[in-house]
Amino acid sequence: MSQVRIDWKVLEDFTKKIFVEMGMRPEDAETEARVLVWANLRGIDSHGVLRVPQYLASVQKGGMNPDPDIQVLRETPAVIFVDGDHAFGPVVTTFTMERVMEKAGEVGIGWGLIRNTTHQGAMGYYALLAAEKGMAGIALVSNPPNMAPYGAKARGIHNSPIAISVPAKEHRPLVLDMATSVAAGGKVDLAVDKGVSIPEGWALDVEGNPTTDPEEAAILLPFGAYKGSNLAIMFACLSNIMAGNPLVAPTLAGQEVRPGTQNSVVAAVDIGTFSDLEMFKENVDDLVDGIKGLPKAEDFDEILMPGELEDRVHEERAEEGIPLPEGTVQNLREVAEKLGVEVPEGL
Amino acid sequence: MSQVRIDWKVLEDFTKKIFVEMGMRPEDAETEARVLVWANLRGIDSHGVLRVPQYLASVQKGGMNPDPDIQVLRETPAVIFVDGDHAFGPVVTTFTMERVMEKAGEVGIGWGLIRNTTHQGAMGYYALLAAEKGMAGIALVSNPPNMAPYGAKARGIHNSPIAISVPAKEHRPLVLDMATSVAAGGKVDLAVDKGVSIPEGWALDVEGNPTTDPEEAAILLPFGAYKGSNLAIMFACLSNIMAGNPLVAPTLAGQEVRPGTQNSVVAAVDIGTFSDLEMFKENVDDLVDGIKGLPKAEDFDEILMPGELEDRVHEERAEEGIPLPEGTVQNLREVAEKLGVEVPEGL
Repeated sequence: MSQVRIDWKVLEDFTKKIFVEMGMRPEDAETEARVLVWANLRGIDSHGVLRVPQYLASVQKGGMNPDPDIQVLRETPAVIFVDGDHAFGPVVTTFTMERVMEKAGEVGIGWGLIRNTTHQGAMGYYALLAAEKGMAGIALVSNPPNMAPYGAKARGIHNSPIAISVPAKEHRPLVLDMATSVAAGGKVDLAVDKGVSIPEGWALDVEGNPTTDPEEAAILLPFGAYKGSNLAIMFACLSNIMAGNPLVAPTLAGQEVRPGTQNSVVAAVDIGTFSDLEMFKENVDDLVDGIKGLPKAEDFDEILMPGELEDRVHEERAEEGIPLPEGTVQNLREVAEKLGVEVPEGL
Repeated sequence: MSQVRIDWKVLEDFTKKIFVEMGMRPEDAETEARVLVWANLRGIDSHGVLRVPQYLASVQKGGMNPDPDIQVLRETPAVIFVDGDHAFGPVVTTFTMERVMEKAGEVGIGWGLIRNTTHQGAMGYYALLAAEKGMAGIALVSNPPNMAPYGAKARGIHNSPIAISVPAKEHRPLVLDMATSVAAGGKVDLAVDKGVSIPEGWALDVEGNPTTDPEEAAILLPFGAYKGSNLAIMFACLSNIMAGNPLVAPTLAGQEVRPGTQNSVVAAVDIGTFSDLEMFKENVDDLVDGIKGLPKAEDFDEILMPGELEDRVHEERAEEGIPLPEGTVQNLREVAEKLGVEVPEGL
């Protein structure tokens, strides 16, 4: 399979220019590009620049709004409720996370609810923002259905991801970032771009039959059977229904939902309110070292921490460049051509 | 397998008397009995009165404290940090959840961190307390290790459960309550009491080899491979390490940890701060109806909501009595005899 390697800064700059041409303010375009390329840097290619053509299509269909009027609907010392006006997810989510962290600094926790955001990229990004400020970060999101609830053979819930991050001392911050499906939808898209099949158990086709063809995959399957399914249902309640924007039931009832709409929760817990921050970080290091030192299961050489694999990829790709499969490159070139953005050398 | 059926009120009263004889204040004994029998009513027998002999043993070893001095260590308008002084879990957790719900009523969210609690029973109980007050409830807990992290064949993390509950209108509140292991540890204990084997994939023996003998089961296995494992690691950070009481790494390093110690987070999000509560409840009903109406997967007659199975058992057992296996009955009789508590008729 053919691919190219591109410097992350070049890719970020190119991606930013594309977003500016889509109608975004330069600072918003920068945020958006940063979040996507961060995902690529960490090997989460399913949430990286491969999304750009989808975003352009969404803007053109009246889904994602490149020039949003973000509103704070309600605010207390501990919570904030924001309407994103269908902003690109990273724009409104970064805005909200910053406010949430301020609140956590004041009263120990900040809890942000975002209505009418659109695709936010990798949720781990926002959780990590908190960890980098000495806080625990939590982020989750729910969309219209793309996953079969346990026991169903049709779409009925979103494969809501959740991210949680905490700082460590010598180790990198821990960053859990997982979908409630067996595999994130973007991983299916990536298989399409790569022209490879997907494992059994990831998805059903539109008729509800199991498939390993990513082009046929229409319905994701929950991880851990009823456990992943039930987590996704509760996350839909905490985000969509809490925000008065239920998405799932209206879609199932055949009502029109603005394409790309999603609702999200971001939260930060201030560690210093409860414990000494340095002691916390040392204790996370000890936890990591303790677990990594355990006897290994058969076929395992090491035990990985949440985000550890991504940290290694990050280091390697920051140095060596980000590999993009030919399908993704071709799509990006087409977008650039449509928008009159020059394609950088090497892409 | 022989079993008896006992009226839940009789069982609760008997259990309360046992706890009073263990040295608990009557109101605390009542709380403790209520939480355990609630689990039995809902069919979560692994977290019900089968625990009573373990609790007595723990009190005698200096683990659980029947007469605790519960302290509020820190408090803001949004958070509370409580030291449970090794109280029986339901006593300190109910106390903290009440305070957390007051805060949520004021500022939209309340976040409670509990240090030095002991076994809390079924975590769904506390999440449901919030749902019954028009709030979303969240509860999680972490203990010393009893589960193999993904990639390990030894204990290295606790199979932390998480519970989330929200109210509905015509439907019962949704109550997710799940361990991050394939099966909760109490389910292994229950298999011992019932004299049955456990399914493959639940547990390893003390050497790290797979076992289906509940008497040999020493190490639980995470659900969803690395996903359940990583959730458990993050929950340990949010509870144990946040509370300055890390438990896991010290245990792995061979240090003494007071038996039965655990740390917990309970939180409530006030729905009315964000949305109209009645609309929220109607939207939860619509979500439930939408999902339950989906085409069923092969071998499924219906799609169950979080807590729905338990609601049905609750209704049946409230009417017909709680079935207890012979092993559990025998253990309860022995405890009653030791403490001089009269065994009620029918047990």
